[in-house]
Amino acid sequence: MLTKTPHLFDEATAVTAGDSRWQGRTSPDYWAFVGPFGGCTAATILRALMQHPQRAGDPLALTVNYCAPVAEGVFDLDVRLVKANRSSQHWSVEMTQGAGDVATLATAVFAERRPSWSHQPAAFPGATPFEQLRPYPKLAMTWANQYDFRFAEGEPKLGGGAAKEPSSAYSRLWIADRMPRKVDALSLMSMSDAFFGRVFHARHELVPFGTVSLTTYFHVDAADLDAEDITRLLAVADARIFHKSYGDQHGELWSPSGRLLATTTQIAYFKA
Amino acid sequence: MLTKTPHLFDEATAVTAGDSRWQGRTSPDYWAFVGPFGGCTAATILRALMQHPQRAGDPLALTVNYCAPVAEGVFDLDVRLVKANRSSQHWSVEMTQGAGDVATLATAVFAERRPSWSHQPAAFPGATPFEQLRPYPKLAMTWANQYDFRFAEGEPKLGGGAAKEPSSAYSRLWIADRMPRKVDALSLMSMSDAFFGRVFHARHELVPFGTVSLTTYFHVDAADLDAEDITRLLAVADARIFHKSYGDQHGELWSPSGRLLATTTQIAYFKA
Repeated sequence: MLTKTPHLFDEATAVTAGDSRWQGRTSPDYWAFVGPFGGCTAATILRALMQHPQRAGDPLALTVNYCAPVAEGVFDLDVRLVKANRSSQHWSVEMTQGAGDVATLATAVFAERRPSWSHQPAAFPGATPFEQLRPYPKLAMTWANQYDFRFAEGEPKLGGGAAKEPSSAYSRLWIADRMPRKVDALSLMSMSDAFFGRVFHARHELVPFGTVSLTTYFHVDAADLDAEDITRLLAVADARIFHKSYGDQHGELWSPSGRLLATTTQIAYFKA
Repeated sequence: MLTKTPHLFDEATAVTAGDSRWQGRTSPDYWAFVGPFGGCTAATILRALMQHPQRAGDPLALTVNYCAPVAEGVFDLDVRLVKANRSSQHWSVEMTQGAGDVATLATAVFAERRPSWSHQPAAFPGATPFEQLRPYPKLAMTWANQYDFRFAEGEPKLGGGAAKEPSSAYSRLWIADRMPRKVDALSLMSMSDAFFGRVFHARHELVPFGTVSLTTYFHVDAADLDAEDITRLLAVADARIFHKSYGDQHGELWSPSGRLLATTTQIAYFKA
């Protein structure tokens, strides 16, 4: 932690108590169109798992299905260790509100990662240094203002109506917490959903949009991340297809040193 | 269906009865190293959902977490509709055996897909025609013999010990049921796990390997798939990283006409 007072991200993803049932509350600081920023929700779920007394190992995979908009206010997290073996754990988490309506359904895998053959065929995308790029302008959605986005390629051109021809959906950008915070598994999870909707890039306009399912794989454990000791990531994202109201996204999150930290994919609803 | 007698794939993924609880049985015809082929398990789960009386719409996303090897014999599927709204459904499925030990944990999203702007930025990889490529030789694992794999690029070179330098993990190949069967959502799901482990390609050798979590997105609905009317796919797969006993895979499944049918990603354990 680089700041002495709690970081807004840590406040926004705070959870309390619980063995199988945890509580949290949405944060106005990480608000999106009709509910909290999905990355914040995903990180909150991950935080409950990481603080769970039965947790062993580091996050390996997290899938979050956004079933319904999360309403402003409190929520419960129903956390269940479904299966554990010597080196891995399988978890299920349901986020509910009010009378038990499920807003979010997640599964997670944790693993104690052992040394092995190591090989990174993916090529580091590289980019103009962070300091030499201008921050992306502030947006109406509060969550986006918690991040410092600096586009090296594929900055979205919004407004002025839909493009006649679709643009590339590819982006390459630095992502940092606007108030610097050391990147950990929680912020990595959140940042894996911090790309703008690919449909906005392709169409040059904001349209109704919502992530339906998000999956992130972690390719480093806590020791690896600690050794990186970074406050920003180089991230790339692209889309392969938009069809019948749904489009995909796949992305990579890199440390500035050229290490692949996480990969992510999602499928999202759009109206266009 | 192109055959009059039931296809082995349909027998292997058969499920019976049930509102919330369904039953099935592993098939010796789709067996892998220490349990059934994961693609067959995923397709069986999807079949239970598709046959469920409350199901509406087409599969959009399926994530399967392989918690433990599925033992030979019968299993139960505990199927739960977690949330439904006007145009989508969120499902949870647990595969259990014996005293209720969870072997597989899955979440699925179904959607009634509405017409929209349609755009496919991904480039069709293309390949030498199926008929001009030789089938990959038969393997000891029965599941692999249910498929006709024809590599256009990246055929794995196994045996002779580990390569001194890692090879590319990229493959481009045709995948067909050996006994022809019209591609539907079930076989698409199964084929999304029908790539050989990327680590085998990179290292030129078989090593202990197991998929931990698999996510597949469907980019076509039943009407789209029906219009394609195909019995084989062109598939590509690659890996980005192998580190501390886990490696990733991402793949695309294309119709021969150049339509992207599904995308898939997985994280897998390996010992090397």
